[in-house]
Amino acid sequence: MNVGFIGVGRMGTGMAANLLKAQHQVTVWNRTPEKAAPLIAQGAKTVPTVSEVCRGEAVVTMLANDEAVESVALGADGIVASLPAGALHVSSSTISVALSKRLADAHAKAGQRFVAAPVFGRPDAAAAGKLFVIAAGEAGAIEAATPILDAIGQKTFVVSDRPDAANLVKLSGNFLLASVIESLGEAFALVAKAGIDQHQYLEVMTSTLFDAPVYRNYGAMIANGRFEPAGFAAPLGQKDIRLALAAAEDLRVPMPLASLLRDRFLTLVARGGEHLDWSAIGKLPAMDAGLGASTRL
Amino acid sequence: MNVGFIGVGRMGTGMAANLLKAQHQVTVWNRTPEKAAPLIAQGAKTVPTVSEVCRGEAVVTMLANDEAVESVALGADGIVASLPAGALHVSSSTISVALSKRLADAHAKAGQRFVAAPVFGRPDAAAAGKLFVIAAGEAGAIEAATPILDAIGQKTFVVSDRPDAANLVKLSGNFLLASVIESLGEAFALVAKAGIDQHQYLEVMTSTLFDAPVYRNYGAMIANGRFEPAGFAAPLGQKDIRLALAAAEDLRVPMPLASLLRDRFLTLVARGGEHLDWSAIGKLPAMDAGLGASTRL
Amino acid sequence: MNVGFIGVGRMGTGMAANLLKAQHQVTVWNRTPEKAAPLIAQGAKTVPTVSEVCRGEAVVTMLANDEAVESVALGADGIVASLPAGALHVSSSTISVALSKRLADAHAKAGQRFVAAPVFGRPDAAAAGKLFVIAAGEAGAIEAATPILDAIGQKTFVVSDRPDAANLVKLSGNFLLASVIESLGEAFALVAKAGIDQHQYLEVMTSTLFDAPVYRNYGAMIANGRFEPAGFAAPLGQKDIRLALAAAEDLRVPMPLASLLRDRFLTLVARGGEHLDWSAIGKLPAMDAGLGASTRL
Amino acid sequence: MNVGFIGVGRMGTGMAANLLKAQHQVTVWNRTPEKAAPLIAQGAKTVPTVSEVCRGEAVVTMLANDEAVESVALGADGIVASLPAGALHVSSSTISVALSKRLADAHAKAGQRFVAAPVFGRPDAAAAGKLFVIAAGEAGAIEAATPILDAIGQKTFVVSDRPDAANLVKLSGNFLLASVIESLGEAFALVAKAGIDQHQYLEVMTSTLFDAPVYRNYGAMIANGRFEPAGFAAPLGQKDIRLALAAAEDLRVPMPLASLLRDRFLTLVARGGEHLDWSAIGKLPAMDAGLGASTRL
Repeated sequence: MNVGFIGVGRMGTGMAANLLKAQHQVTVWNRTPEKAAPLIAQGAKTVPTVSEVCRGEAVVTMLANDEAVESVALGADGIVASLPAGALHVSSSTISVALSKRLADAHAKAGQRFVAAPVFGRPDAAAAGKLFVIAAGEAGAIEAATPILDAIGQKTFVVSDRPDAANLVKLSGNFLLASVIESLGEAFALVAKAGIDQHQYLEVMTSTLFDAPVYRNYGAMIANGRFEPAGFAAPLGQKDIRLALAAAEDLRVPMPLASLLRDRFLTLVARGGEHLDWSAIGKLPAMDAGLGASTRL
Repeated sequence: MNVGFIGVGRMGTGMAANLLKAQHQVTVWNRTPEKAAPLIAQGAKTVPTVSEVCRGEAVVTMLANDEAVESVALGADGIVASLPAGALHVSSSTISVALSKRLADAHAKAGQRFVAAPVFGRPDAAAAGKLFVIAAGEAGAIEAATPILDAIGQKTFVVSDRPDAANLVKLSGNFLLASVIESLGEAFALVAKAGIDQHQYLEVMTSTLFDAPVYRNYGAMIANGRFEPAGFAAPLGQKDIRLALAAAEDLRVPMPLASLLRDRFLTLVARGGEHLDWSAIGKLPAMDAGLGASTRL
Repeated sequence: MNVGFIGVGRMGTGMAANLLKAQHQVTVWNRTPEKAAPLIAQGAKTVPTVSEVCRGEAVVTMLANDEAVESVALGADGIVASLPAGALHVSSSTISVALSKRLADAHAKAGQRFVAAPVFGRPDAAAAGKLFVIAAGEAGAIEAATPILDAIGQKTFVVSDRPDAANLVKLSGNFLLASVIESLGEAFALVAKAGIDQHQYLEVMTSTLFDAPVYRNYGAMIANGRFEPAGFAAPLGQKDIRLALAAAEDLRVPMPLASLLRDRFLTLVARGGEHLDWSAIGKLPAMDAGLGASTRL
Repeated sequence: MNVGFIGVGRMGTGMAANLLKAQHQVTVWNRTPEKAAPLIAQGAKTVPTVSEVCRGEAVVTMLANDEAVESVALGADGIVASLPAGALHVSSSTISVALSKRLADAHAKAGQRFVAAPVFGRPDAAAAGKLFVIAAGEAGAIEAATPILDAIGQKTFVVSDRPDAANLVKLSGNFLLASVIESLGEAFALVAKAGIDQHQYLEVMTSTLFDAPVYRNYGAMIANGRFEPAGFAAPLGQKDIRLALAAAEDLRVPMPLASLLRDRFLTLVARGGEHLDWSAIGKLPAMDAGLGASTRL
């Protein structure tokens, strides 16, 4: 397929590279054009405008937030304005349910196809084509997107014919991850203040009830107190909890644990932790318990 | 070894049977003597008093709560009063940190050995000798307990030379489990109200980020709305969160997620859910969201 | 002064009437023109467009929410487009801090004056000219607004030269009120389940520590379980907590009690309480405690 | 009446002095006998044992916590063991509902009368005889206690014939007070971070919606950041929230705001605030918002 790709940050670069490996023709547009260099070396073309990246059968977007997606998709000379009728937009960014609905509506009006296909996985999984893809959209659009989704992920889950459902599932997944961090943070504060070795504690827990990478990885970060470099920065985690809560508010679903996480992220960034990995909220329970530096009133 | 065993409920029966299989001589005392019948068939003896079950090298207790343990251990003609000097008490019940400290003190004064050895695992794991044992106590006591611990579990983790540390680790583990239930309950309420199929959602999550039995099992219970029969009853879960919070209060560790869980269990039992599995707290977010019967104001 | 007035609902009608009593010339515009009838009987004029209501020295807006204010103020032929240079916009609606900032910027660019002047008080206080006015804006604008503010309120508090500060103070006040409701709701659930008479309890509390109308009034509503007719409807309370939390998020201020209130309002509207007074969140603690109808699982 | 008085701290001294002024004969026992000196100067007698202070028609206890009351009331040679049949125990301490029930049972078995009569008011109100008394007990016991209650308070509210109901009402009152502190703390953090003057903000709020001493006094302490000397020390506030939550747990009443307060007090004492007034929890929201010293991660 002839595929445009918008947004070649750490995730997008790996995804686009896998499209190339799968023999798709890939044209890239990025706000900072220099970032496209590694992909050009692998055979991608680059174009100077969003409009020009929309001339193929499909365009994939992988951007940081709602504002970026809204700007390239709904602005003048954006994707909706440029994509041929019948062509496909695959939106892999983690965006709000509300924006996903707006995109679906706009593409429908323009006679274009739209699939929301956010992914689970970090940059290394993107590079390896090992992402999990959560996809939603009309059957025909999903079918059209399949060669793309197969190239970027190890497995695709189609969760609904309404695209925004995929975005909600993605946001709920990040809520579940942040919940793991919070629970570990509180448990570590408890056992640490009792004098129990945190690394041994982590070993016990992840050898028994919680034998899963998410517990091992976040647990190690909290036990080591090392939140740099940020694999997934605190403001991004904060954003995702905000979007989950916004969707929950629209659906009228109270989520007190998500509210707690919201307050944790606010505390983290208010107290200077904006540059840290989002798992640094797992340090706050220990600080509230008076452990560590900078905790005396 | 010549081992006394107090408390042959669903967990204790399996544990005592494995002691028999490992060629230990086992003498049983149970408040309801009839429950010892299956063990007698396997070669155990039974005696009519706590005092008499304490005449061997060691006694193991596996009881429901602090009150039961306090009664058999610290009462007149109880374990502390009856056990020979140098003999060993292995306490596998999930009890409070405070009671574990009292037991350690009492045994030390009486010249006896004490190991706290709570376990992770359900009755089927107890029967199969597949429990994980969290043990703590003085090195000599741990050494003496090793043949017993090896018989009842697949692996023993020694976490401290202070016995109560093992109880704290056990309680923290149940806190982590209940946190999983709460997070799943909120996530399910969110996606269910958006019209997403809960079973498919669970499949997505447990095939990707949360590939662990705890997510599969509790997720299935919440998705099915089936909380009977109770594998671990709500009041027991409520008790363990209470004990975790009590330990946290003594240590001055605020745990807001544990506080939320406490309120969930109170709501569950206040609204008639006392007979349900503890994972039924995972149903409350959906009810607060107006899903299901009996939710209109 | 020659004053335009936009929004003559229950609050605005009383406020405009007091402007008339203070000998101001009042021209009214309302989306539903019939609502202006009582004011016309008192000497007001009515005009068919927003543009025409903006031809005097000042215009006052008293509308339900951000959308309504944004529409009349920032739309084509709206207030900013229509008001003469140097003329004044007094915004008394309870709107977001963010919109207040946008209005201030737009008026500044257009060479107009802007005062945010939200009020504390219910419709009866508005009719009696007994509102409390929280005002903010540049000194010259405040001075120009003083005859208007004096007419509608018993006292004006000038809190800042930045208009949005007044909106934040107003939102914080509604947060404090909702906190009173939550605390009373929990206290009533506690004593009611212990069999203590709720009315006597209220009498004790409001005769001693909490001798203030807010405790008497909301306490009586909760004790009586009567939340209709709604003096201040649940969705409006929900909106104000949402706006307070939005402002707090922009300022990076975690507010866990506000988060709890947010979840209470979501529960209330999710379970069918949209038509009730906002104090109906004070009924939820008793329901969670298993008191009353419709509370069994 | 011939009245024994146990516990002449800051509250008890004022209460006992008012008994003397009302022409009662007062005999004092205090763990630290020197504290009785001012009362002896006013005409009180002192005795060396609890037993001897129980030889009159009534004994009043005003002690710091459950442990102190349990020790003097239920211990060997304590009040229950010493008081004549038909004589009266008036318990004014802020104690748990559970202990109040135990005392009521013990006195009933011993043929003695028991009234729980906790008070609202600070030491200055105690000295002035201006306390509010929350009383509960059987009609005959209340009648017998009336001359005592009239002497120590400005008004008595009889809330139940079960003594423990008075203790629950008292605890609920302190919960309501702490809720005021929390709500003010969050509101102050919000407006302070927006650059609004906190003293002016307090003036606005207490001149309008919250014209009550509790808002003025706690608001001023938070605005000034002055929590010393402690009028009511943090550990006492922490204790009362603990007792309220314990009563709520026994009654199966979830109280999420009380849970939040519990965590606030734990944070306060964990971070070195044990010596501060309990209103210092109102400082924590600002710290979580990154305001003030010692708040950087």
